[in-house]
Parts: sequence; structure tokens; C-alpha cells
Amino acid sequence: MTDQMFMGASTKQGYDIATKSREIIRGLIGDEIKDLKPAEKDIVERIVHSTADPEYAKLVHISDDFVDVAMKSLRNNETILTDINMVKYGITRYDGEVECYIKNEEVKKIAKEHQITRAAAAIRYASENDFEGIVVSGNAPTAVFEAMDLYEKGEINLKAIVGVPVGFVGAADSKEALRNSNIPNVITEGPKGGTPIAVACVNSLIQHL
Amino acid sequence: MTDQMFMGASTKQGYDIATKSREIIRGLIGDEIKDLKPAEKDIVERIVHSTADPEYAKLVHISDDFVDVAMKSLRNNETILTDINMVKYGITRYDGEVECYIKNEEVKKIAKEHQITRAAAAIRYASENDFEGIVVSGNAPTAVFEAMDLYEKGEINLKAIVGVPVGFVGAADSKEALRNSNIPNVITEGPKGGTPIAVACVNSLIQHL
Repeated sequence: MTDQMFMGASTKQGYDIATKSREIIRGLIGDEIKDLKPAEKDIVERIVHSTADPEYAKLVHISDDFVDVAMKSLRNNETILTDINMVKYGITRYDGEVECYIKNEEVKKIAKEHQITRAAAAIRYASENDFEGIVVSGNAPTAVFEAMDLYEKGEINLKAIVGVPVGFVGAADSKEALRNSNIPNVITEGPKGGTPIAVACVNSLIQHL
Repeated sequence: MTDQMFMGASTKQGYDIATKSREIIRGLIGDEIKDLKPAEKDIVERIVHSTADPEYAKLVHISDDFVDVAMKSLRNNETILTDINMVKYGITRYDGEVECYIKNEEVKKIAKEHQITRAAAAIRYASENDFEGIVVSGNAPTAVFEAMDLYEKGEINLKAIVGVPVGFVGAADSKEALRNSNIPNVITEGPKGGTPIAVACVNSLIQHL
């Protein structure tokens, strides 16, 4: 990581703002995250940076194996598969592919034929088209469930899941299931989550490549 | 608005989830937003829906003229100008243009020449290239300040600003300045804000076209 890339900053002004922001964040959540590994701390700090919501220090849970497995996948330039385009376009400066298939015509057919959501169908489509890498969901619990299901069946070559869908209905259940799985994962407890959380997590890892 | 488009849902399953979510949200924030106009209520409900954070009912402020002015602009298919691509790709189902110039080569030159952020330069670039419509900032306080500055000088044809940048440094000041201006606006008080808030606000209006 170069200084200029600190927390996504690309200019001197941006860097100064990011530095001051990080000081404020450490004042707010430093105690809560003091036992995390450095790369895990960076993930949580960046999530709080991009939401201005210190509650995420309590809500984010990172499995012990997540950072090592995800970093290895990213170092190999494996694919980052996102559930929605907003997440895709938030992930920057990655040398590998960042893919989102939700608007793919084939995905629409799969969704219709199997009566599943397009978000779930997009994961299935990826699994049938040589996907290898990390699944990132900031929106759709059905994408998380589908990825877990395909993983259990040995039908998807995924290494880790960033599963942080947001919402009062269904989201918390999908994240709890993921947290209790043997898949390397990051989740947010309860209804909170969303695009900025997913993006912050992935960009934090990319910054350390 | 068709039933199928309720809160962005595009399938029966999505519609059921959105309906249940809205019930929960009304239970959480119904009292706080009871004096708002219907279209304003929808904006706040959709923001809470997309963040699962009921605190936004307290933080969102919508100027009296915002909904009428913004709806007129959108009905005329005027341009929606966003500060970052994440916001652009979250805005769906709009018949007009949704533009983001942050990666434009000309914008990079303007930023370098005038020593301003690319986000600010992108607003200036739009003002010099026949922009007419709504400015939407989910990330960069400098975009909000630049849009306000150009508006005061009569150099940008903007009708309203959705100004909800997030962050512990600078964001709150930009939003307070916008709130106190005579530009039709939506802001979030304090550091909180971000892409999902910007997107929810705009998509809520689009849904009512």
C-alpha cells in the first residue's frame, strides 16, 4: 500500500482527509477492535469510514481464515463476483475481473425457469461458467444462500464470501447461516449492511495487495 | 408506480419482501415522519429500507420545494449528474441520462490545472457541457460545494441537489451549507450519508414518475 492509496485517497487533499478521518475512527472504535489482526482492523475501520457509523465495529464479524484465504485469491487475480452493479462499480484498482451477471440475458432465463431471484440465478450462472474467486453480496440474501448451497454441493469454486446484505426481511438470517458455515466469510450481524460495507471490505483487502 | 415496482422490487418475491419491510419501517419511524408529504415520506422510508438504519428518519432533511422541483426536472428527462459511479449504477429505470464524469480525461486535466478534486472538476465540466438537471452527491463534499458555488455564480443549470456525502471530515459542513442555501435540496445531518442514501432518494422519485 502506498501512502497515496490510504483509504482510497488518490490526492494529497484526499489523503489528509483520510488521515484525519482514521484518527477520529480510532478514537471511536479503537478499543472495540484492539484484538483484531491488522488486516481485520483495516476492514472494520474502512467500513466505519465509509458509513460514518461506528456501530459497525460491533456488527462486523470476520472468520479467522477469511483474510488469508481472500488475500491469496486476490493475489492470484481470481474473480470478484458481486450481486449488484453498485457493488461492482465501487470496487476499484483491482487487476483481476470484477463481474456482476444480474442483467445477463441467460441469467434472466435461469431465474424464470427455476423461479429463483435474478441475484441467485447470477451466482448459479457464474458457477456454470468457470467462476473461481470471491463472492460479494451487499444486497441480496438469496445470492448468499445460493452461493452457500452450491458450495455445499461442490458446484462452485468459491474461496470466500463477503456476505453483508441489508434489510429487515431475510438479510440477518442469510448472514447468520453464513457465519455458522465453514466458508471463510465476513458478515454484519442483524439487518444492517449494504453496498458501502461490501465495497469497503473488498477495497481494504485490495489496498494491501 | 405499479405494484411490481414498489421499493424497487421486480418480482413477486421481491414485492412481498418490500411490503413486509415497509410495515416494519413504518412501525419504527412512522411517528417521526407523520407530518411529511407523501413523496417525502417515501424518500425517508426508502432510505431506511436501504440502510436498515432508522436513525435516518431524524437525519434526513428535505427542503419544502425539493419534491416539486425535482419531479418536474425528472419528468422532463433532464440529466441526473452523480459524483461517483457507484451512485450512477444504483439509479435504475430512468428514461433520461444518468452521468458521472469523474473518470473523464478532461476532468482529470481540470482537476490538475485548478488544484481541485476530481469530484469538483466533474461538476465544473458538466456545467461547461450543457448540463441541466439534478446534482446527486453521495460521497464528495467538494462536489456539493462546487455545485453550490457555480449555482451562486449563475454558471450551472441545476434545479436541485441531493447532497448526502458521508464522512467524519468535511461532509457535515457541506450539507449544512446546502441546507441553508436557497437551492432545493435533500441532506443528511451530521457525518452519516453515502451512496445508498443518494440512490434511495433518487429512485424513490423515479418510482413516482
